[in-house]
Amino acid sequence: MINTDLLIIGAGPTGLFAVFEAGLLKIKCHIIDALPQPGGQLAELYPKKPIFDIPGYPSVLAGELVDNLMEQIKQFEPGFTLAETATTLNKLEDGTFEVITNKGTVHRAKAVAIAGGLGTFEPRKPLIDNIADYEEKGVEYFVKNPEHFRDKNIVIAGGGDSALDWSIFLSNVAKSVTLIHRRNEFRGALDSVEKVQELKNAGKINLITPAEVIGLKGDGHIEAITVDKEGEIYDLATDYFIPLFGLTPKLGDIANWGLEIEKNAIVVNNALDYQTNIEGVYAIGDVNTYPGKLKLILCGFHEATLMCQSVYNRMNPGRKYVLKYTTVSGVDGFDGTRKEAEKAVVKKID
Amino acid sequence: MINTDLLIIGAGPTGLFAVFEAGLLKIKCHIIDALPQPGGQLAELYPKKPIFDIPGYPSVLAGELVDNLMEQIKQFEPGFTLAETATTLNKLEDGTFEVITNKGTVHRAKAVAIAGGLGTFEPRKPLIDNIADYEEKGVEYFVKNPEHFRDKNIVIAGGGDSALDWSIFLSNVAKSVTLIHRRNEFRGALDSVEKVQELKNAGKINLITPAEVIGLKGDGHIEAITVDKEGEIYDLATDYFIPLFGLTPKLGDIANWGLEIEKNAIVVNNALDYQTNIEGVYAIGDVNTYPGKLKLILCGFHEATLMCQSVYNRMNPGRKYVLKYTTVSGVDGFDGTRKEAEKAVVKKID
Repeated sequence: MINTDLLIIGAGPTGLFAVFEAGLLKIKCHIIDALPQPGGQLAELYPKKPIFDIPGYPSVLAGELVDNLMEQIKQFEPGFTLAETATTLNKLEDGTFEVITNKGTVHRAKAVAIAGGLGTFEPRKPLIDNIADYEEKGVEYFVKNPEHFRDKNIVIAGGGDSALDWSIFLSNVAKSVTLIHRRNEFRGALDSVEKVQELKNAGKINLITPAEVIGLKGDGHIEAITVDKEGEIYDLATDYFIPLFGLTPKLGDIANWGLEIEKNAIVVNNALDYQTNIEGVYAIGDVNTYPGKLKLILCGFHEATLMCQSVYNRMNPGRKYVLKYTTVSGVDGFDGTRKEAEKAVVKKID
Repeated sequence: MINTDLLIIGAGPTGLFAVFEAGLLKIKCHIIDALPQPGGQLAELYPKKPIFDIPGYPSVLAGELVDNLMEQIKQFEPGFTLAETATTLNKLEDGTFEVITNKGTVHRAKAVAIAGGLGTFEPRKPLIDNIADYEEKGVEYFVKNPEHFRDKNIVIAGGGDSALDWSIFLSNVAKSVTLIHRRNEFRGALDSVEKVQELKNAGKINLITPAEVIGLKGDGHIEAITVDKEGEIYDLATDYFIPLFGLTPKLGDIANWGLEIEKNAIVVNNALDYQTNIEGVYAIGDVNTYPGKLKLILCGFHEATLMCQSVYNRMNPGRKYVLKYTTVSGVDGFDGTRKEAEKAVVKKID
């Protein structure tokens, strides 16, 4: 069982920054995310795209912003439960919370912040009758750990950046990589498309287009896929089948937690501290709604900050908190580090 | 007369970022600030100090943050009225506003955003009877333009970073620089103190400590100061006297504009769009107050953003605005530039 002060559901930019603001208040955090790495949409959907409206950044790549946020919160040593989805929320008798994931991991916390963005990113699945039978038995919708595929035969399906980039990356890891796409045209970054062309020419990626995977075979674990290449039907032996057809956000189980929901978003108390109708449960970032709400990263940062103040008051009833400026007071990390501005010296000139 | 859409009072980080968010909505901005350069406190009080709580910046020097914000808003070509203080606000019959500065500059705008921080930074003045007689006649509380002092004899008074840094800088510009401080000890960055020691040893800065300036003389313009050096009283000829004893923030004339004020801050409508009791006049950043208010730069960014949406609605009544993401839609600068993410290519692999 994982115990923490503030349990954050969602490791997107808002959830990550909440760790920093909580840390300044000595509140310990743990984050759950359905994706295998932190960063939410920024890391999963558009890591190489620039964002232009982060204050103080004329331009920043989404992936860089995530890296910078991870660097900023490192000192507060957040815990992570990754590649698991929060399915159950229980308010316990003592006012604390229990959150259980789809894998059965139990988390206990004094407060919960839902920073779930547009929801859990669920993979679009190919329409293959028996695909559910092979999930976690050779069918993978995410590449959680590339090492998992070392010296294996893998088939990737898809025609976008994910399919291209993972084909490139895994061509150095797997025994063989086959890329199957229903069109001859791929849609992605120019250098990714060119790199796949190169690897194909060098015989390092086996390309089958235009084609579709129409069946899966194997006893207990996938052993082969059935390919339909313009009417020609044949089996291809493989250890893994990785369809990368994109992700769709779903609010998912959170919708059943008794929270007030409006248009797929969680209603919070009019921007006071972004608390939901369940006391001690907050919703910050794109997942919440209130009058004037804008789904912008910079707004999530502000919401995370006010939320943390409220969590502090909840954890320290009656204790008066005096806001300290990091420039003046420095930052004490949980890891023993201390960041502070250089002190002015008092020195005689003679 | 200066005409604009949104007149921003205060060129601190909140006021600067408001230009960006306004620009995305095609709202033209003009900024008034009492200081001679943009950046507010960050530029004037602690440009070389790191800030640790700007989201996505594990650490950033205050001056760098200002530079980055200036770079981010450049494309929207804001106008600036610097080194002037907004003294009068008039709401005109057509619902627009007129703001006049202490120098008589007239500004007209469709909306006004007060981003005044802790207020106007007013210099702490030395207690010299007739000092008011020589203001703008040789007594200067800010170095607005160093060139103003070229080949002049100047006396700087003070013992902190401003006095040290300007003594160093102007020692290369002025005919002579005299630094007077009531103690032998100076309080500032180590390298500034050491540099002044060096310049003193080299005969480039004339240092008089411990001493105070107790009188000013001159006919129409300052011609000499009277120094008290441990009881020894004497006159010293000079063209300028620059006392740099620090700044204190004052809400100033804004307090008389009919705005609802609470504990030296402007009351806004509970975080909806940060509008004040005067419709069309907003208050954002440290200058405002509402339940849960935190005086943090990152909160000012959020407030600026929501405020701009409200100004848009005010300028375009009934027109529905659809939020566009910069990553998806790019940014069209008023200067003809366009920033956008690289488009995915659609390309055949054969």
